[in-house]
Amino acid sequence: MPGNDARLGWLGTGRMGAAMAARLIDAGHRVTVWNRTKPKTAPLAARGATVAGRLTDLGGCDIVFVTVSGPADLAEVVMGEHGLLSGPRCPPVIVDCSTVSAETSAAVRAAARRAGAGFLAAPVSGNPHVVAEGGACVVASGPAEVFGRVRPYLEQIAKVAVYAGPEEQARLVKLCHNLYLGMMVQALVEVTSLAEKGGTDRAAFLTFLSGTVVGSDWVRKRSGDLAGCDWTPTFTTDLLRKDFDLGLAAARALEVPMPVGSLVHQLIQSAIGTGARGKDLLSLYEQQARNAALGPAAE
Amino acid sequence: MPGNDARLGWLGTGRMGAAMAARLIDAGHRVTVWNRTKPKTAPLAARGATVAGRLTDLGGCDIVFVTVSGPADLAEVVMGEHGLLSGPRCPPVIVDCSTVSAETSAAVRAAARRAGAGFLAAPVSGNPHVVAEGGACVVASGPAEVFGRVRPYLEQIAKVAVYAGPEEQARLVKLCHNLYLGMMVQALVEVTSLAEKGGTDRAAFLTFLSGTVVGSDWVRKRSGDLAGCDWTPTFTTDLLRKDFDLGLAAARALEVPMPVGSLVHQLIQSAIGTGARGKDLLSLYEQQARNAALGPAAE
Amino acid sequence: MPGNDARLGWLGTGRMGAAMAARLIDAGHRVTVWNRTKPKTAPLAARGATVAGRLTDLGGCDIVFVTVSGPADLAEVVMGEHGLLSGPRCPPVIVDCSTVSAETSAAVRAAARRAGAGFLAAPVSGNPHVVAEGGACVVASGPAEVFGRVRPYLEQIAKVAVYAGPEEQARLVKLCHNLYLGMMVQALVEVTSLAEKGGTDRAAFLTFLSGTVVGSDWVRKRSGDLAGCDWTPTFTTDLLRKDFDLGLAAARALEVPMPVGSLVHQLIQSAIGTGARGKDLLSLYEQQARNAALGPAAE
Amino acid sequence: MPGNDARLGWLGTGRMGAAMAARLIDAGHRVTVWNRTKPKTAPLAARGATVAGRLTDLGGCDIVFVTVSGPADLAEVVMGEHGLLSGPRCPPVIVDCSTVSAETSAAVRAAARRAGAGFLAAPVSGNPHVVAEGGACVVASGPAEVFGRVRPYLEQIAKVAVYAGPEEQARLVKLCHNLYLGMMVQALVEVTSLAEKGGTDRAAFLTFLSGTVVGSDWVRKRSGDLAGCDWTPTFTTDLLRKDFDLGLAAARALEVPMPVGSLVHQLIQSAIGTGARGKDLLSLYEQQARNAALGPAAE
Repeated sequence: MPGNDARLGWLGTGRMGAAMAARLIDAGHRVTVWNRTKPKTAPLAARGATVAGRLTDLGGCDIVFVTVSGPADLAEVVMGEHGLLSGPRCPPVIVDCSTVSAETSAAVRAAARRAGAGFLAAPVSGNPHVVAEGGACVVASGPAEVFGRVRPYLEQIAKVAVYAGPEEQARLVKLCHNLYLGMMVQALVEVTSLAEKGGTDRAAFLTFLSGTVVGSDWVRKRSGDLAGCDWTPTFTTDLLRKDFDLGLAAARALEVPMPVGSLVHQLIQSAIGTGARGKDLLSLYEQQARNAALGPAAE
Repeated sequence: MPGNDARLGWLGTGRMGAAMAARLIDAGHRVTVWNRTKPKTAPLAARGATVAGRLTDLGGCDIVFVTVSGPADLAEVVMGEHGLLSGPRCPPVIVDCSTVSAETSAAVRAAARRAGAGFLAAPVSGNPHVVAEGGACVVASGPAEVFGRVRPYLEQIAKVAVYAGPEEQARLVKLCHNLYLGMMVQALVEVTSLAEKGGTDRAAFLTFLSGTVVGSDWVRKRSGDLAGCDWTPTFTTDLLRKDFDLGLAAARALEVPMPVGSLVHQLIQSAIGTGARGKDLLSLYEQQARNAALGPAAE
Repeated sequence: MPGNDARLGWLGTGRMGAAMAARLIDAGHRVTVWNRTKPKTAPLAARGATVAGRLTDLGGCDIVFVTVSGPADLAEVVMGEHGLLSGPRCPPVIVDCSTVSAETSAAVRAAARRAGAGFLAAPVSGNPHVVAEGGACVVASGPAEVFGRVRPYLEQIAKVAVYAGPEEQARLVKLCHNLYLGMMVQALVEVTSLAEKGGTDRAAFLTFLSGTVVGSDWVRKRSGDLAGCDWTPTFTTDLLRKDFDLGLAAARALEVPMPVGSLVHQLIQSAIGTGARGKDLLSLYEQQARNAALGPAAE
Repeated sequence: MPGNDARLGWLGTGRMGAAMAARLIDAGHRVTVWNRTKPKTAPLAARGATVAGRLTDLGGCDIVFVTVSGPADLAEVVMGEHGLLSGPRCPPVIVDCSTVSAETSAAVRAAARRAGAGFLAAPVSGNPHVVAEGGACVVASGPAEVFGRVRPYLEQIAKVAVYAGPEEQARLVKLCHNLYLGMMVQALVEVTSLAEKGGTDRAAFLTFLSGTVVGSDWVRKRSGDLAGCDWTPTFTTDLLRKDFDLGLAAARALEVPMPVGSLVHQLIQSAIGTGARGKDLLSLYEQQARNAALGPAAE
């Protein structure tokens, strides 16, 4: 029963999933939730959600959203022995909002299709806090008709819900986002070190840059960390490199040259080779400052 | 007479100057304005400004702001035969809010110093519309004490007023801003073409990217032009290349490596060599799309 | 029976194999040859070689050299149903002088080891003409003791026979060679176009560069083609790209940054995207000349 | 008196000049030499040269070759108060074989032209030892007719004498040569570190590469230094950077993109920033090895 009044299921109520499901519940939708460790569903139950006894009970919903922590989990909760497709009823639509590879996505999609379910890959940009405030963005791919049915709900979850294409395009778009982030960070550390060696205080420079039209929320939020050389991990150089590995492999397959993307990939590799492994991606500054002979990066 | 009640002068009331001066007038300050073509001062007079008969009359102000269209104009209105420093009285503080080279800035600063005036280089980021709405950013350099006197006024003109150092640092910071913009645009066209060749609609991709934490006002504002392949000039590839020429020369002098900045410089050069001269910097997309064999850039 | 008087087998007497085997025969060694199309063994027989009736007859040799045209052929002639390892006797040493991937090499090596044969990967640099004149270079990897036994023969085949390590290192060294070649060609087209736009005749420039200490045989041999914009394939952009794919993947796996290698990879990709597919790698000049607005590349 | 029997003058008999002049004397030409410190002319006198009493005595020659140590010296010995052009007679042709900037070259050329002398810029590639063995290369620019007169002598001095154009092209060609060298060295250290991290001995790899068609005399000669991490200066990173400064400035002026050249410029800058200042250009390996986490570059 589609439309704006579908019965919704939510599989996986970790921090992200809970924040997203909460927005649907608060908007008045009927949401049935399930989580491997049941106590995590309590806050949503308090908010009005029904808690499913078994994962397969979600098969009775019109649309089941999935938010799990990676490809192996996604495969298991959908295609596994006790997964969503193993139950007596299969939901007509499954929407995966996790961050998984295009390969896993395609495999799960194929399994869903064989079981008669439409599958939407719908990764989310934004952390739980951003989601809660309605500031998240979703990019979705799968059959256009499936997107049409899910769209009203995505738009309640996020401020932007974009359709990227009929297959795994949403995964590539997410990689593009992270490639762009990596390039932006390298650009940032280059100009920051230049201004700094020219005599401008790092924090002052970042305040200026953040305030102008080229400033982004990301730069604004992280300026303090960069100014203070705080490399506490939020997104490590290694994870960033992995996204560059995947993104550049996709570019190669599609025969799209990525001159700057590719150079940044190598610079990340150099940074990892000289001590940035496991540090936040902002630590690209350390390599840049060292190469610019800027003296101790952090006083 | 310093403090928040200084007599202010405004030399040059073109679109940017008028928007900036208006903010000071509207805040209740006494502002005397002068412009080569007098009629352009009328709107400010109507707003409450005094109109000076001769440029040198501004010599009686405590602080004179200058907004002219380039280095030659700045040199003339300050150091020229009939310039500000040629009059019977020299203002104690001159603040240049134009965009000029570090060389011109240093020459004007030296001339001002000889005449007993403190000089602040204070380029602005933002167009007249942004200025009027209070969204501009100013970065200033010159003697710290001079910045201290001018700061309250800069903060009424702009939302951010940052101190960059005792000499021409503000000019370098402005170049850093434009280097960052250039790198951002190249990053943008790389990921856009990748998403596009993967099957995602260009406009949809840009909507998503603009919405996330990596989105900037600049990208949001220009997404439509990029989606529609509209290269009507706002900032041409040639002017961008000039800023890269200057910024990379400064980096070389300071011995700061700019691996990505330098590569983008070369890519801008390639774009100019293959037809992007005089087009908007977003036309870097054309080169990228051609190299990716994306077919006609604009359908 | 090792030493300098082993019974040698030669499997595959195409142009390269024949040239290499001929050097051993001419040096007085006993060589038994086999080829899928028997007539191709005639010139070697005339030179003194014994022609084997069946491939597996080579099993009686002390050392069997293999020169076939690619990984599938290597796998078949060694591990296939009627391959070298299928016979009643297995030669103690197999030396593969073909150009195959590290994966195939490792698989064949493992099969040989199980059958009790030592395996040497020994790709060759040089064409049949160079081999005949004694100018080839061999890089070999496998057990050091096996290399020791084969070395005297390799040194009769080639002017240089280098030991690269105990496993598939020789394959990586060959890729390194081709990465270096690709970078050299891009460097070449950059400086050639610069000299040319400065007013120097392309052929004159190449004559000068070829004559100096930085000149290589490759550049000397190909200068005429570059001067004349003759892109008749000797080594196509696509094949070069494939070697960059493999070489850069190896670099990634080993965590070795390749800033220039990676940029050249992207430039090859751009060239392919704009028409260089299937052309000789020297056609990288076309892209460079176009980006430099050098006018018609070839008059 | 042109032709093959001109009276030749040689101004500056340092190591390079002496080696070049000796080849002309040994070929039977009449050569008059002059040097600031007269004793340095003795070996040439012993070989058959006439020693001029005053620099201006060379004015009586048909062609005067100049080999001095830099632009200031060239300007002085030609245009200075007691220089070649100050004497009673001006030679019809002056050939400068020093390495100087295009600016100085143009200034000296203009002065010579005003005095009625044809000027040829003719920098040499090769050290005194190479020159003595007849292995040097000369690239010359100036009026074609002047080149025609000088060519027979250049061809006795060097194995290759190339005409680059009517003005300062020879200077640019020399810069192109050094840009190519710098790119080749970076390419070399990338592939060397890759082979090495893959398990191949550095010296073995370089022996292989040097032996193949991509090997150059330069690489062959310097392989031992690279294998042994001997950075005793032959051509320092700083001097190389200076040539990249000049070469890339020329490329910018001519609007020729240099993607790899420009990246190598930045890598040289990074190397200098991290300790390679004053070391041989081969020390680019240190940076590469560090970024590849290759452990102590030299054991």
